[in-house]
Amino acid sequence: MSGQLWIVGLGPGARNLMPAQTAKAIGAADVVIGYSGYFDGIADLVAGKACIALPLGEETERAAVAIGHAREGRRVCVISSGDAGIYGMASLVLETLARRPGDVMPEVSIVPGISAVNACAALLGAPLGHDFAVISLSDLLTPWERIERRLHAAAEADFVLAILNPQSRRRDWQLPRAREILLGHRSPETPVGYVRNAYRPEQAVWLGTLQTMAEQPADMFTTVIVGNTQTREFRGRMVTPRGYPSSETRS
Amino acid sequence: MSGQLWIVGLGPGARNLMPAQTAKAIGAADVVIGYSGYFDGIADLVAGKACIALPLGEETERAAVAIGHAREGRRVCVISSGDAGIYGMASLVLETLARRPGDVMPEVSIVPGISAVNACAALLGAPLGHDFAVISLSDLLTPWERIERRLHAAAEADFVLAILNPQSRRRDWQLPRAREILLGHRSPETPVGYVRNAYRPEQAVWLGTLQTMAEQPADMFTTVIVGNTQTREFRGRMVTPRGYPSSETRS
Repeated sequence: MSGQLWIVGLGPGARNLMPAQTAKAIGAADVVIGYSGYFDGIADLVAGKACIALPLGEETERAAVAIGHAREGRRVCVISSGDAGIYGMASLVLETLARRPGDVMPEVSIVPGISAVNACAALLGAPLGHDFAVISLSDLLTPWERIERRLHAAAEADFVLAILNPQSRRRDWQLPRAREILLGHRSPETPVGYVRNAYRPEQAVWLGTLQTMAEQPADMFTTVIVGNTQTREFRGRMVTPRGYPSSETRS
Repeated sequence: MSGQLWIVGLGPGARNLMPAQTAKAIGAADVVIGYSGYFDGIADLVAGKACIALPLGEETERAAVAIGHAREGRRVCVISSGDAGIYGMASLVLETLARRPGDVMPEVSIVPGISAVNACAALLGAPLGHDFAVISLSDLLTPWERIERRLHAAAEADFVLAILNPQSRRRDWQLPRAREILLGHRSPETPVGYVRNAYRPEQAVWLGTLQTMAEQPADMFTTVIVGNTQTREFRGRMVTPRGYPSSETRS
């Protein structure tokens, strides 16, 4: 007998930004699995359920445990922050299932959520009004050369950039290096926004430029958005227009 | 006296994917402004309010009308589909305000939402498990040369691609041209997903490859997601692993 496996993202943190479908999936589960820090905000939803809290870094274990329970016929919900599909648990669970294709397949449902990218953009204004690229600076599972190639490509092709995992205690040179690469393609006056802990009590929003970001601290809870050549600041908001000046278009 | 201006996205369509904060902003407004097609799904929320429905193509007018009402002291909510910050009304409203910086500035709040990108990814599996680029193929306000440069850059740097506005009645050659560019950098076997009308009654999900997508119809309601070199299909799901094979990493 095969069980049911939901993979959901809790959104940026504020409960009123989590859609009803997510709460419903958590409510329907027998077993809820996620990083220990995620359970506080949803205590009412998980009351009476088996909650399996695993520390950061044990994502692979979370996926394996969730699949194990689902294969035993249970109704399991794996929780991520943000959107489970964007650097979240969704790909890890599906990857883990794909590694043993002969095994019983539980029914898998993924519920979309509001990612850190959507949330931070809303707090900064409208920086994602045009084409954008999302890049994680974590080189734990991706060779740094590949990340650098992406930074060059996105900067050269005038994408707005959303940078996740910009810095951690052990990774301190990647963001300065990314800034250096971007400065090779864009003006030092290009607007840059930092959002830390979006929609949480400790939320902090900073708006500056490629020049001034050098002084601004970042960590694993920070998302950095770098404007394209059209992005402007207006009264503390970052705005990327939805097009290019008409002289440039085909008209 | 200056009013209040909310800019919200309704999400992909299903009401249970719209967070409570969005419903609250609509509920608090005196005037709700948006494309006529958006009002049916939120009839209960807008009952008794002044609803201003403007046709597709009149986005600039919607922004101007919303600002006008807010400047007269009203509480105004502008509605987009998906996330208002991603090719939505947020940048257009802020751009319009910035064009007359001396005027009274209403208080502006942007509520994040679940974009078409998040929604389509969830229906396809987990294609956005790694770095990705979001590109609109509409060359109405962006020169095609710039769009092409972005397609080349994103393909060459191994981004997953989310393609919005792939095709319309008047624009029929852009998606085939994008496919041609992508085939210059990626295998014909690269997984490609199409989602039309995500989370609406007419929802359609198709999973194929760069090779087979040539036969698949698309329109303005379709989002196309093209995998990177690591993306695989597994039992009808598109999965992009969260990293590269360990032989390639620094470790």
